[in-house]
Amino acid sequence: MDNSSSDHDSQPEVVSNIFTERFTEFNDDGTFKNELVEHTIETEATVPKLGLMLVGLGGNNGSTLVAGLLAHKNQVTWESKTGVHTPNYYGSFTQCGTTKVGIKKLPKGGIKDVYKPVKDLLPTINPTDMEVTGWDISKDNLFEACKRSHVLEPDLVNKLESDLSQIVPMKAAFNPEYIAANQSDRVDNILEGTNEEVIELIRADIRNCKERNEKVIVLWTANTEMYLLPELETIEDLEKAIKDNVSLPASVLYCVAAIKEQVLYLNGSPQNTFHPGVLALAEKEGGLLGGNDFKSGQTRFKTAMSDFLIGAGLRISSIVSYNHLGNNDGKNLSEDKCFQSKKISKSGCLDDAIEGNEILYPRDGKDIDHDVIIRYIPFVGDSKRALDEYSSKIFMDGVNTISTYNICEDSLLAVPIMIDMVVLGELFSRMKVDGKAFGPVLSYLSFFFKAPSTNHPEYVINSFNRQRETIVNLLKAASGITPDDATLLSFNY
Amino acid sequence: MDNSSSDHDSQPEVVSNIFTERFTEFNDDGTFKNELVEHTIETEATVPKLGLMLVGLGGNNGSTLVAGLLAHKNQVTWESKTGVHTPNYYGSFTQCGTTKVGIKKLPKGGIKDVYKPVKDLLPTINPTDMEVTGWDISKDNLFEACKRSHVLEPDLVNKLESDLSQIVPMKAAFNPEYIAANQSDRVDNILEGTNEEVIELIRADIRNCKERNEKVIVLWTANTEMYLLPELETIEDLEKAIKDNVSLPASVLYCVAAIKEQVLYLNGSPQNTFHPGVLALAEKEGGLLGGNDFKSGQTRFKTAMSDFLIGAGLRISSIVSYNHLGNNDGKNLSEDKCFQSKKISKSGCLDDAIEGNEILYPRDGKDIDHDVIIRYIPFVGDSKRALDEYSSKIFMDGVNTISTYNICEDSLLAVPIMIDMVVLGELFSRMKVDGKAFGPVLSYLSFFFKAPSTNHPEYVINSFNRQRETIVNLLKAASGITPDDATLLSFNY
Amino acid sequence: MDNSSSDHDSQPEVVSNIFTERFTEFNDDGTFKNELVEHTIETEATVPKLGLMLVGLGGNNGSTLVAGLLAHKNQVTWESKTGVHTPNYYGSFTQCGTTKVGIKKLPKGGIKDVYKPVKDLLPTINPTDMEVTGWDISKDNLFEACKRSHVLEPDLVNKLESDLSQIVPMKAAFNPEYIAANQSDRVDNILEGTNEEVIELIRADIRNCKERNEKVIVLWTANTEMYLLPELETIEDLEKAIKDNVSLPASVLYCVAAIKEQVLYLNGSPQNTFHPGVLALAEKEGGLLGGNDFKSGQTRFKTAMSDFLIGAGLRISSIVSYNHLGNNDGKNLSEDKCFQSKKISKSGCLDDAIEGNEILYPRDGKDIDHDVIIRYIPFVGDSKRALDEYSSKIFMDGVNTISTYNICEDSLLAVPIMIDMVVLGELFSRMKVDGKAFGPVLSYLSFFFKAPSTNHPEYVINSFNRQRETIVNLLKAASGITPDDATLLSFNY
Amino acid sequence: MDNSSSDHDSQPEVVSNIFTERFTEFNDDGTFKNELVEHTIETEATVPKLGLMLVGLGGNNGSTLVAGLLAHKNQVTWESKTGVHTPNYYGSFTQCGTTKVGIKKLPKGGIKDVYKPVKDLLPTINPTDMEVTGWDISKDNLFEACKRSHVLEPDLVNKLESDLSQIVPMKAAFNPEYIAANQSDRVDNILEGTNEEVIELIRADIRNCKERNEKVIVLWTANTEMYLLPELETIEDLEKAIKDNVSLPASVLYCVAAIKEQVLYLNGSPQNTFHPGVLALAEKEGGLLGGNDFKSGQTRFKTAMSDFLIGAGLRISSIVSYNHLGNNDGKNLSEDKCFQSKKISKSGCLDDAIEGNEILYPRDGKDIDHDVIIRYIPFVGDSKRALDEYSSKIFMDGVNTISTYNICEDSLLAVPIMIDMVVLGELFSRMKVDGKAFGPVLSYLSFFFKAPSTNHPEYVINSFNRQRETIVNLLKAASGITPDDATLLSFNY
Repeated sequence: MDNSSSDHDSQPEVVSNIFTERFTEFNDDGTFKNELVEHTIETEATVPKLGLMLVGLGGNNGSTLVAGLLAHKNQVTWESKTGVHTPNYYGSFTQCGTTKVGIKKLPKGGIKDVYKPVKDLLPTINPTDMEVTGWDISKDNLFEACKRSHVLEPDLVNKLESDLSQIVPMKAAFNPEYIAANQSDRVDNILEGTNEEVIELIRADIRNCKERNEKVIVLWTANTEMYLLPELETIEDLEKAIKDNVSLPASVLYCVAAIKEQVLYLNGSPQNTFHPGVLALAEKEGGLLGGNDFKSGQTRFKTAMSDFLIGAGLRISSIVSYNHLGNNDGKNLSEDKCFQSKKISKSGCLDDAIEGNEILYPRDGKDIDHDVIIRYIPFVGDSKRALDEYSSKIFMDGVNTISTYNICEDSLLAVPIMIDMVVLGELFSRMKVDGKAFGPVLSYLSFFFKAPSTNHPEYVINSFNRQRETIVNLLKAASGITPDDATLLSFNY
Repeated sequence: MDNSSSDHDSQPEVVSNIFTERFTEFNDDGTFKNELVEHTIETEATVPKLGLMLVGLGGNNGSTLVAGLLAHKNQVTWESKTGVHTPNYYGSFTQCGTTKVGIKKLPKGGIKDVYKPVKDLLPTINPTDMEVTGWDISKDNLFEACKRSHVLEPDLVNKLESDLSQIVPMKAAFNPEYIAANQSDRVDNILEGTNEEVIELIRADIRNCKERNEKVIVLWTANTEMYLLPELETIEDLEKAIKDNVSLPASVLYCVAAIKEQVLYLNGSPQNTFHPGVLALAEKEGGLLGGNDFKSGQTRFKTAMSDFLIGAGLRISSIVSYNHLGNNDGKNLSEDKCFQSKKISKSGCLDDAIEGNEILYPRDGKDIDHDVIIRYIPFVGDSKRALDEYSSKIFMDGVNTISTYNICEDSLLAVPIMIDMVVLGELFSRMKVDGKAFGPVLSYLSFFFKAPSTNHPEYVINSFNRQRETIVNLLKAASGITPDDATLLSFNY
Repeated sequence: MDNSSSDHDSQPEVVSNIFTERFTEFNDDGTFKNELVEHTIETEATVPKLGLMLVGLGGNNGSTLVAGLLAHKNQVTWESKTGVHTPNYYGSFTQCGTTKVGIKKLPKGGIKDVYKPVKDLLPTINPTDMEVTGWDISKDNLFEACKRSHVLEPDLVNKLESDLSQIVPMKAAFNPEYIAANQSDRVDNILEGTNEEVIELIRADIRNCKERNEKVIVLWTANTEMYLLPELETIEDLEKAIKDNVSLPASVLYCVAAIKEQVLYLNGSPQNTFHPGVLALAEKEGGLLGGNDFKSGQTRFKTAMSDFLIGAGLRISSIVSYNHLGNNDGKNLSEDKCFQSKKISKSGCLDDAIEGNEILYPRDGKDIDHDVIIRYIPFVGDSKRALDEYSSKIFMDGVNTISTYNICEDSLLAVPIMIDMVVLGELFSRMKVDGKAFGPVLSYLSFFFKAPSTNHPEYVINSFNRQRETIVNLLKAASGITPDDATLLSFNY
Repeated sequence: MDNSSSDHDSQPEVVSNIFTERFTEFNDDGTFKNELVEHTIETEATVPKLGLMLVGLGGNNGSTLVAGLLAHKNQVTWESKTGVHTPNYYGSFTQCGTTKVGIKKLPKGGIKDVYKPVKDLLPTINPTDMEVTGWDISKDNLFEACKRSHVLEPDLVNKLESDLSQIVPMKAAFNPEYIAANQSDRVDNILEGTNEEVIELIRADIRNCKERNEKVIVLWTANTEMYLLPELETIEDLEKAIKDNVSLPASVLYCVAAIKEQVLYLNGSPQNTFHPGVLALAEKEGGLLGGNDFKSGQTRFKTAMSDFLIGAGLRISSIVSYNHLGNNDGKNLSEDKCFQSKKISKSGCLDDAIEGNEILYPRDGKDIDHDVIIRYIPFVGDSKRALDEYSSKIFMDGVNTISTYNICEDSLLAVPIMIDMVVLGELFSRMKVDGKAFGPVLSYLSFFFKAPSTNHPEYVINSFNRQRETIVNLLKAASGITPDDATLLSFNY
């Protein structure tokens, strides 16, 4: 049976494949039925010209992303203490990740696995083909921004000076009530006006970008805002708050503007931008959302560790996570009200791991002692440090203790993930399953977020491995390749 | 469609299920075919009375296993510095691990995952129902052995004294040429004779055990032996070496005895017991083998870490693994010739991770700088310490460094894995796929071994996640549950 | 010149020695004078019968101290997982520390250092000769307290049961306003009454103890209280607050009672018990004080590390100190107001190191980024964890990073220090320099405290090495041995 | 009493001070005498023009030292990822260390410590005034050497290019039998000839250097050589071996040349250059020696840690030290025979700490389990990693465990120590005590060496604090300042 109808060479309009999903459905009495459900997955094959608009263009993430893509485009090499370097996309799941797509029989007998880069399963944008633009509360150009960020080597930034210095952020929406006071000395590039006026100015910027590109994505990579309470429960609440010029965090204004312009809005910070009213608006207006909070460092590591430890039958009993960093994100988070947003987004990441194992975590028993601390230590700059301690109960109540010290490099880990979510977000917006587009939330982007937002809030996956499997299997199915069940039975394994 | 023909309540003779394996087969030109292959998986439903025979019964692993099972059987509680304890199987994948078996629809809409303990997917032995016996080069009874090992709390060992002190190891095969000289002061319980005589004595012990049990498994958990060179390439080589009374390591004698008695032989140490001649003998005589070297600590952690890092698109560039331990295993390994066996079994664990990603590890490029060190430090006793450093290249040649300090508790991590391999090894010996039994090597036990032996030496999986998935999917398929493809497409995820 | 007039064998009334102190005094213009000042140091040679009264007798420190001393007295041995143990005083500077007292000429030429135990330089109490008693807000006897604390091995505690269960704390002063609310469920043993009444009740307890002993010391090892503000600036403020029954923390009542009874009061917690008004009262009434906050773990390590790094010419640029613990101290500190006391006592420990080096820390330049975090993690119990990161600038602005992971065992490190401060506090109260007794503050006890209180608040030493040298040199001088100047010039070194 | 006869302003020929050394001498029966011994310490006040000749000029240490001094001299600033930098001497005890020299009385009462930079206690050379030259087995100029070493930032090295590229190492003595085979591809700049010829060529180079400078110091900072056995026991053995052209390691030839030219020879590597025959020759010929093996990283840290832990009365029970590095030193050490030299020099560093405390380490009891491992991991380059674990027994046989992870930066820590030993070595060669010069070994340089060589091999100090105190007290005494005895008795402390 060869059910792949796609043919990448001739570039058809649509890659269409039929995929038989398998799962088992249980009844309350423990009986079950194995289901086989056919789905048609269609993917528009033509990769559009994409405009990526960053909120926080001049921040460490924004400026590093722009400089990194320019280095790729211009094939710049540069020198550091350790030698001469060429650009790479290490840390990008789409650009550097691979997945097993099948097996190959060997001439002398036996088999061999076949792997494929994730980015090649379906037509995806090349990151260097994007136009990257955006807003920032500081009007420093991107050369100045790169110098300020202390992320990339000076030799590289200097070689990119002529390109970088021409990129100047657009004026940004800004509400000081939601940001730490210590950010005020960066602020010199602000959109003025009522909520409605600011939303309209942002929409105009987006429309402008649309004129030069076939598709636009807005990505928030700016400061963490404080939690907005009370939540905006309905579209009416939201619209009234906008109309009455209630003090709203900038992120809500950007998100509403993106929804109205029907462009994908990705939220890289932990604040609660996606209020019920905002989600309802997105559904009504055909907006697309993805979030929240880039999962690049300690939390991602933690979900991999809990996969491993609990997966091995060990009872994790406490996890203590200490972080410190010295970049502007850390400075902003050093104000307690902003840190609360971060803490909430980091704390839920073990929930599904615990719920999946009632032997280790009986419903009426004790949970994991879990604590997360973030501190601002200027000296370490963007080189974020994560110190974790995992204590697990082992056989006969012994204890296994793992202490980890992780030098994370905050922005260099975040940027490839930003690239991934843009590449896949763009791809997902070209896909239909059984005739229906994804949305309003792109749940499949959960992999990249600390506090994943999904269309089914009762069902959230945090496990690194399950999230990864979900994406690669979706991509394989959409490209006509059967996701493997790993049993190897046909090979007398 | 409800294709589960099993009915656990009425205990049928055989659980039989049809499973449609899915995989994709590639041709050399990159074209592929999605395959659906039906298999019938039959499992004898009756769990036999099992006799487990340990080589090294009085060692730290052996004595801890026996005492742990007695504590479960007698429902002993005991006191330590941190309070009162009850027995558990933490760290056992079969006894404490769970797996997602499907979903359940919620009354108000949405779905929920359904999990099941691994041990309940098919009928498996209850560890406390086993008879545990075995051989040791020291004739100390198991109460003395537990005291000597410093693994379990004294209050527990004291409460088990009357049971433990009645268990005395049988005389063991022993060849000092393959063991560190520092072991000599333990030796007072030795089988004397030629190779042929010793094999016959071991066979007699096995037959004896068979009289009291329906099935027998032999598990090597004794000292690491030095590598045997030249390898025994054929059955003839092996038989000649036995006959000519060539100096052979004890493990080969035990293994040959087990093969001749057609009982499963599991190798928990790194030495090369499974020579080509031994494998051929097992195939010819209907023997069953599994090995090599328990994967309980640092190596298991390392394969989970490389799954995670490479899976995230990061380029691991160096891994340095330092270990020290102070138990008798460490003492034996402190002799260089024994350590070589260990080092070899630890070094290959990254091979498949590297081969699976040509973007990060181009065929002509540099590999991972990988080093493994083990040292003997009496003070730490059985509380093995593992210090690892993982250095990865990240975006734009930044570097992410993770330093881990792991207090492992050697035997408490190993014993649950010994239980797992016995439980699953016993189960696998009751299973048939398309009418054929597994063997001579139980490749599906790879999950538990540092240097997995399989029937297809060209195809070895070290990845913690893939190994785990392979086992649970096999068990699900055998029990009539469809392994999930994780895409969640039917749920508008 | 043999200037030792003491003769330990015949036990004279007073050990009297003349010591010529050396120091250099600088003028503002940089000129200096080397001073030689003769002092007579007299020490009463008879060691009194001592009664030690602990505030917090049933806490982890208190119960561990009592059980530890009983084990020594009764020469109890006990079994743990790692073997059989006998009592020791490891971690006690007086009982296990030694100091170089001089040299010995070798018969074949050359010299050899001569060392002496610190406790043997002058007559000091034997810890097992003390009567230990005290107060606690819980009336559990000390057997119950030891079981609750999870500090000592059960075998040891069980063997001491008959002795321990007879020791029941006296009713304690208690003011819930200064303690975390989470402590309330321990409270069942409280002194009731006005400030004046409670002080009188405590004094009666002290007088009672005096009847059985020649000398009494009161040591606060109870919960950290919240800071008391406004401070009690004068004796009048203090007396008015007592009289008006203003809500005062219990520690002030204990301290006032001790002063009035002229017994030494040692403060092992960080709260500001020693207000100016309290110090003035002590001076007026002939009271003796020592404090604040036992320096047993991370802070002590930190002052040794800064001695080392700055002493080597390295510029420490940031120190981040994370702690977590799960004992009752941690539980109480988890309330923010109590943690503030702790944080203040931990933060000043680098001040003298920085002030001593203007090359590395110019007066107008940047300081050390220094942060201290303490968290409550029940799982780790009394086994306190300290994770520190030291970042230092090195040659040509390179960076040296040291990350440390420290498993501290809170009470087992604190108790020997409690013993030290009692042994030395008792000794210092028998000493006179030039006819004058020490006090009202025993500045020489600084070595044992995180936030040392001295008679000269403008001059505080935190350096581990300098503090240690100060004590041993004082003891040597008092015992007639010349403190060494380490130059070794006479030996053609 | 003002006994300082020095007056730095008028630059007398000789700074002469009388110092009364104090120490206590014990007899075998435990009685003691306090000694006061007057010494006259004379220091030539004129700082000579110094020529520093490095063996291994083009290695990482050599090239970093030269570039660092040039940066100071030319006041170069440079840019790295973290900003703009100016040269510093951080890590140099002489240039950045301070010492308390006395006290100052405060106008309002109380005292204040007075500190002085170590380098200002007596006239010392300014490092930038030295001429640095030397030998290397590679003829790469120092610009190439700096690029190859990957130690300093490229911006700095590039700015120094014109100066650095003019410095070319002289041809070096080389004996491949004593060096790892993997070094052979660096070798293109070799002195050819018999032992006698090579010594004469080196002497000619030294004389040459003497013509341009008033004093010359030779410093070995080249590869670690393998141990030379049998040792050269007498001058005759040495002279015979030279004459007979026995294969000798290069270091012996350099050392003999330096002795014959009467210039100070400092040995920065662990090999046993200072054979008894070499020491005897130095004594006979008036040579000066200092060594062995720079104590810059883990060993120095370890002696500070053992000072701290044992000083606090804790019983260190095991120390495990793992190192890895990727520079050429590591590559050379990866050959076992060279590593043996290193291991020996690292292992003795705890001896004096143990000998000083018979309570913790009874003569007939167990010692510290101590192990040292060094591995070659190319990826980490010059950024040496040290992972240590310190386990100490604490009160009642509890255990305190400290695990440290140290990113050392090998050359950046070594170079300031090289500067220190040159600055102080030069100073010590201008000093006389009671009319006698130091030598033939400069024992006072012990502070800087892992395996200190002294004139009294039976008496070696490894303690970081004692070594430091010995030097600063010598310098204070020589400059007329009384070393403080820290008792503070005159200040009613």
